Amino acid sequence: MNIEIQIDRLSDELDRLASYSDLPAPAISRVVFSEQDLLARSYVRQLCEEAGLVVREDAVGNTFARWVGSDPEAPAVATGSHIDAIPNSGRFDGTVGVLGGLEAIRALQRSGFSPTRSLELVIFTSEEPTRFGLGCLGSRLMAGALDESCGTRLKGHVGGTLDEVRASAGFVGPLSAVRCPTGSYSSFVELHIEQGPILEREQIPIGIVTAIAAPAALRVTIEGEGGHAGAVLMPNRRDALCAAAEIVLAVEAAAKSSGSIDSVATVGLCNVFPGAVNIIPSRVQLEIDIRDTDLERRDLMLDAIMDSCHSLSRRRRVSAQVEILNSDAPAACDPTVVEALADACDIQNLPYQRMVSRAYHDSSFMARIAPTAMLFIPCRGGISHRPDEYASPEAIANGTLILAHALASLSQL
Amino acid sequence: MNIEIQIDRLSDELDRLASYSDLPAPAISRVVFSEQDLLARSYVRQLCEEAGLVVREDAVGNTFARWVGSDPEAPAVATGSHIDAIPNSGRFDGTVGVLGGLEAIRALQRSGFSPTRSLELVIFTSEEPTRFGLGCLGSRLMAGALDESCGTRLKGHVGGTLDEVRASAGFVGPLSAVRCPTGSYSSFVELHIEQGPILEREQIPIGIVTAIAAPAALRVTIEGEGGHAGAVLMPNRRDALCAAAEIVLAVEAAAKSSGSIDSVATVGLCNVFPGAVNIIPSRVQLEIDIRDTDLERRDLMLDAIMDSCHSLSRRRRVSAQVEILNSDAPAACDPTVVEALADACDIQNLPYQRMVSRAYHDSSFMARIAPTAMLFIPCRGGISHRPDEYASPEAIANGTLILAHALASLSQL
Repeated sequence: MNIEIQIDRLSDELDRLASYSDLPAPAISRVVFSEQDLLARSYVRQLCEEAGLVVREDAVGNTFARWVGSDPEAPAVATGSHIDAIPNSGRFDGTVGVLGGLEAIRALQRSGFSPTRSLELVIFTSEEPTRFGLGCLGSRLMAGALDESCGTRLKGHVGGTLDEVRASAGFVGPLSAVRCPTGSYSSFVELHIEQGPILEREQIPIGIVTAIAAPAALRVTIEGEGGHAGAVLMPNRRDALCAAAEIVLAVEAAAKSSGSIDSVATVGLCNVFPGAVNIIPSRVQLEIDIRDTDLERRDLMLDAIMDSCHSLSRRRRVSAQVEILNSDAPAACDPTVVEALADACDIQNLPYQRMVSRAYHDSSFMARIAPTAMLFIPCRGGISHRPDEYASPEAIANGTLILAHALASLSQL
Repeated sequence: MNIEIQIDRLSDELDRLASYSDLPAPAISRVVFSEQDLLARSYVRQLCEEAGLVVREDAVGNTFARWVGSDPEAPAVATGSHIDAIPNSGRFDGTVGVLGGLEAIRALQRSGFSPTRSLELVIFTSEEPTRFGLGCLGSRLMAGALDESCGTRLKGHVGGTLDEVRASAGFVGPLSAVRCPTGSYSSFVELHIEQGPILEREQIPIGIVTAIAAPAALRVTIEGEGGHAGAVLMPNRRDALCAAAEIVLAVEAAAKSSGSIDSVATVGLCNVFPGAVNIIPSRVQLEIDIRDTDLERRDLMLDAIMDSCHSLSRRRRVSAQVEILNSDAPAACDPTVVEALADACDIQNLPYQRMVSRAYHDSSFMARIAPTAMLFIPCRGGISHRPDEYASPEAIANGTLILAHALASLSQL
């Protein structure tokens, strides 16, 4: 079987997908269900149809493009990732797994390969938490890790609830129908940039992920007392931003003192109300991201952050309400799928390394309903979620080639 | 001379003015040159015209309503304040001095009084720094404390530069023409709520201000490095928000450790870029307000804050650029005008207290071009810049009555 990746075409398609953005190049912003996201979806759907794939969409906008196999009743082999992008990010996160997945299928078509199990490309809705405060929305619903009340419960920064926003984007019907029973897929593989420095530093072209770190996200709302910045004397203040500043530093300290390099914690959002130079902040909302490869250590960080919220709220006479947005377990990858990826590397003579994913992915949830593994490629400086995120055409071609080989063998299992 | 304040009418007018707001009652938001600000200006202008005053507006939107005296060439006696309001504030800050000033003039008209010098009500543009980051825009320009380059230099949160925004609101012509030469006014008196707790606590109906505190405002821009919240390990981070949190606490500490209860410092704004839960903040902008009744102590706070910006920027490998938005000297009030206010209180048998204003006002700048003093009335709990800001009709009537008596005597000097 002679599988050839058309990397120039794939690079052009990544360029075109990057043009759907609310920020000027090289910065990308493509928030789920924004106008640019809808245009990008339409572009990818069109590419899938041109490849002769059967395309359908579910109630939350997850998109499925299937190359029907010779045994159409057998559970399919799936691959895919996401195309939504956080504000001021880069062009390779997620998109390499979507357009690379499509090119892997087209390369198999061109090679004359005929799949037994169907091969399906999945484009997941809202892997990024930007709009609704919860990441992996599409895959969470597919895995049954989120019930349909989220349609009214989750509210976006703009445009109302998830139900209202998806309806205005044309996605209707009960969210309960998004769920995929275990057994719907025989395996799932996600191709992704590493978002870390290891592969580039070690000059290894392929990473095979054996586990995905445990993420949690918190929202902390601090309520103090406002007032005139000139007139309220310091001893009488209950400044919500001063309290928030202590929490930001406590979050950093919790990760730095965990005893492991694998602990990370970040305050990415800090909204101050009312937000004028001459008024004492009365309310601040923080959003906090905590991750570890070890669940127990992750939860110890969580406890430490909650403790410092409680102690400073007493000391500063403010209230600090902590809401856990999500708290997910680490996901283990499936040994059979991992072996299929390793075999493909061996056949192609491409060195690989087994590794842990510190970022989380739709694979974290697909692992709950299907045997799953991930394929990483190097990215420059390990940088991601920034405009200068970069993966070379060679790295993308390598990943796509290994993906195509693995999909072929998984389809015949 | 029998001067009677029509407090019911004045209260109704304050109610009506409060209805021009971008937030539902009791919260007020009336940012300069917003649609609601333009409606409010039009309402006040109409009231002035109904009182037979001659109304004119200058290039920045300062509004002047004059009761022409028997010696129309003599420098006029002025009173006034502002009607713009920061987001989520109250209904008495500024507006009492504008509508109370108008009612003082009407009360003198009703009493049969005939002024020698003209009496002029001034409604100053943008006393609040919300839109352009600089307070007392109108009075600063009148006093020549700001040159006309501010028209292109000052940029609003929305709508472009000051020149663009004022033009779209209908105010055109060179900003240099706003300047009032010293000698244009024989005196200026501003009626205002105290915005502090002293008068209420001491049950004194009138405060006569002898000095106004020295304010300064800084903008600090911290540039670190963004990146994926899961993938960038803690030792490799240059998190702009962690650096900003240290600055917030350093600002608080600078005021608390100054050795004087009169030192206050506030971080009112904290904008995080790009602002998503799963991305390390790469840039944060803080706006800081620092005030003291003593200029030297105020400048020591400023130095301490700059020092901590510099030391943490080295330690955290971020840049922290400090921009001084304004740094004004304290203003002293004029003894003759102060005496005119004290005499009016004595005649009316209303107790008064001489005091310092911790908040700053258009009077800070009017004091540079005219003999100036301020008249304070109690407000509940000393609260201001909040929706629950409150001054009683009785307190407002007292202040308006003293203002009317003082304007009358200043007009004959």
